Amino acid sequence: MIYLDNAATTLKKPGGVACAVADAISSFGGPGRGSHAAAFAASMAVFEARSAVAGLLGAQDASRVSFAMNATMALNIALAGLLPDEGHAVTTAASHNSVLRPLFRARDLRGVQVEVARILPDGSLDWESYERALEGGANLVAATHASNVTGDVYDVVRMASMAHDAGALFVLDAAQTAGAMPVDMAALGVDVLCFTGHKSLYGPQGTGGLIVREGLEVVPLLEGGSGVHSFDERQPSFMPEALEAGTENAHGLAGLAAGVEYVAQKAPAAIAAQVAGLVERFERGLASVPGIVVYGGHASFGRSGIVAFNIGDADSGEVSARLDADFGICTRPGAHCAPLMHKALGTAEQGVVRASFSSFNTQAEVDAALEAVESIAHRAS
Amino acid sequence: MIYLDNAATTLKKPGGVACAVADAISSFGGPGRGSHAAAFAASMAVFEARSAVAGLLGAQDASRVSFAMNATMALNIALAGLLPDEGHAVTTAASHNSVLRPLFRARDLRGVQVEVARILPDGSLDWESYERALEGGANLVAATHASNVTGDVYDVVRMASMAHDAGALFVLDAAQTAGAMPVDMAALGVDVLCFTGHKSLYGPQGTGGLIVREGLEVVPLLEGGSGVHSFDERQPSFMPEALEAGTENAHGLAGLAAGVEYVAQKAPAAIAAQVAGLVERFERGLASVPGIVVYGGHASFGRSGIVAFNIGDADSGEVSARLDADFGICTRPGAHCAPLMHKALGTAEQGVVRASFSSFNTQAEVDAALEAVESIAHRAS
Repeated sequence: MIYLDNAATTLKKPGGVACAVADAISSFGGPGRGSHAAAFAASMAVFEARSAVAGLLGAQDASRVSFAMNATMALNIALAGLLPDEGHAVTTAASHNSVLRPLFRARDLRGVQVEVARILPDGSLDWESYERALEGGANLVAATHASNVTGDVYDVVRMASMAHDAGALFVLDAAQTAGAMPVDMAALGVDVLCFTGHKSLYGPQGTGGLIVREGLEVVPLLEGGSGVHSFDERQPSFMPEALEAGTENAHGLAGLAAGVEYVAQKAPAAIAAQVAGLVERFERGLASVPGIVVYGGHASFGRSGIVAFNIGDADSGEVSARLDADFGICTRPGAHCAPLMHKALGTAEQGVVRASFSSFNTQAEVDAALEAVESIAHRAS
Repeated sequence: MIYLDNAATTLKKPGGVACAVADAISSFGGPGRGSHAAAFAASMAVFEARSAVAGLLGAQDASRVSFAMNATMALNIALAGLLPDEGHAVTTAASHNSVLRPLFRARDLRGVQVEVARILPDGSLDWESYERALEGGANLVAATHASNVTGDVYDVVRMASMAHDAGALFVLDAAQTAGAMPVDMAALGVDVLCFTGHKSLYGPQGTGGLIVREGLEVVPLLEGGSGVHSFDERQPSFMPEALEAGTENAHGLAGLAAGVEYVAQKAPAAIAAQVAGLVERFERGLASVPGIVVYGGHASFGRSGIVAFNIGDADSGEVSARLDADFGICTRPGAHCAPLMHKALGTAEQGVVRASFSSFNTQAEVDAALEAVESIAHRAS
């Protein structure tokens, strides 16, 4: 099997990840609950995961990292906790449903005005449209760092700076970039960064979170046991407990720490360069196959490890199924939970076949995938 | 080490749990995302976990089980999704902060009226107070199945029936009971049951969820990618996807299925009887030590595997620390995130030492713990 669906979840993890989780399941008590050695081991693992993530992503300190079940939960917490009723939010058509749906929910239930900046047919941001969306000010911009359809990386420094000029906070969906390339939230000018653990941080599913820059308070969406200040009627307001109700997934976070350690040791820039090599090889190969359309790839800010393509007007689901059944190559077809991006690219009906690479993929796998695509295109023509 | 903090999290898991999670981390794609074999393996594991939980807890079918990160998240989803603005909610003073805080949040932010039925100093429910709280009708009752402080099991059939007579839905916090004793939500008359995976279901941390009886719709609190219906502006309203946004913790759920299988094979009634034997042995032993106070234990509906006690007026934190440091016995002291229960028991200042047992504890461990308590009590007197 050749696994090219790493933008959904990385399948191959560094060896230490599964071991760390299995060890944790055999030895941890409740994190932040009780003070015996087993509880302390769990608390320490959570703290180490916090420190590792903070160090990798440019957080001011570990206490600014609150963990959640996935990036979606983190984005819901950030958007609900920062947007006032009747406020004004801006996003772009490149957003995943994990940004769009919480915003449309805020629109429907809390009277928030939501403006969606246009994405051009080549996958790049329409800056004029973004500027118009910010006219008259806004409370918050939520945007994706890289499209989960095309892999195009957006110019976050410019977007965040324009957002701040308009008086808006900037929330970054880094689900596709954290671990896949250097990401420093302070340097990017990001107020809240949401990440997932199971993609390019090579951790287990069930991990992720949000990093809130110092001085900014996010109103908790979920409340419950906090292990501290138990007699307060409401969730404590200090980080990281404010945004973490109930027992943490310390088992999973032990694995996340191992995944982040792998990324940090290899260095995100080196991983990005290696994966970019695979992406270029695949794209170059596709260019020589008649009838192939590749989407995006025109952003000057680079590319996460994704190549989105179609074979003529063949249904993306059909092509992906053939790649799987006939060649053992795992890709993902369809809409990828980013409906407005597909409308921008003109692929709402057809979807796209998404091949996505991790640091564990090889040139030989790329070549095998190219041969398979060529063979399917040949049959189709 | 003797681990008696199972009400916080079970430390010792059935052998299959860690293995199932490690295997999943090495082989799963994204659950519900894509249709290749690796994604399908993850989807299957999630479905198997759903079926196992549904079978154990009396759900009508597997699709009524939505997974969440923990019981707290599940309770937040249920309470936010069922309570109307300006509605009327009832709970009891035995509730954990995972019920109290979401209700107080609804009171503060959405004008919900919250009534808290009294718990008597012996730990039992004041039925007159509960009846008064329901007078004039209510939208929802949220109550704990068993106190996480004393272990006392409440008469849920009677509570739910009175709630229904008052026109209220009944939401059960089964964090302390699911897996620890027979729990059949249909037989109990429960509309929504919230559970955690990492306690008496012997699964990993980061798992839990809610079961919604057929015909009842819970408005989603979190929205995002659903893997289906991607072009809808809002989260789909059908179960289980309605209450599951973003990538599931399929890795953890593979472990949860193994934990639930262990419970089902041993049978919850047999586990309850075994643990009740340990509880009785411990209580009988404590009764012969001068100066020991045991809390609760007067409910006619049985007891989860908890014994809450103090040695005279000694600080519970100090006693628990001595048990750990001098005898290697892990218990949990303090307030246990159930502030109103401590006020009812008169232990708001002192806290209680909580010893909690699982099916992996032994009589020899109980005897060792008794000797340790006796020794500390002797020194204290």
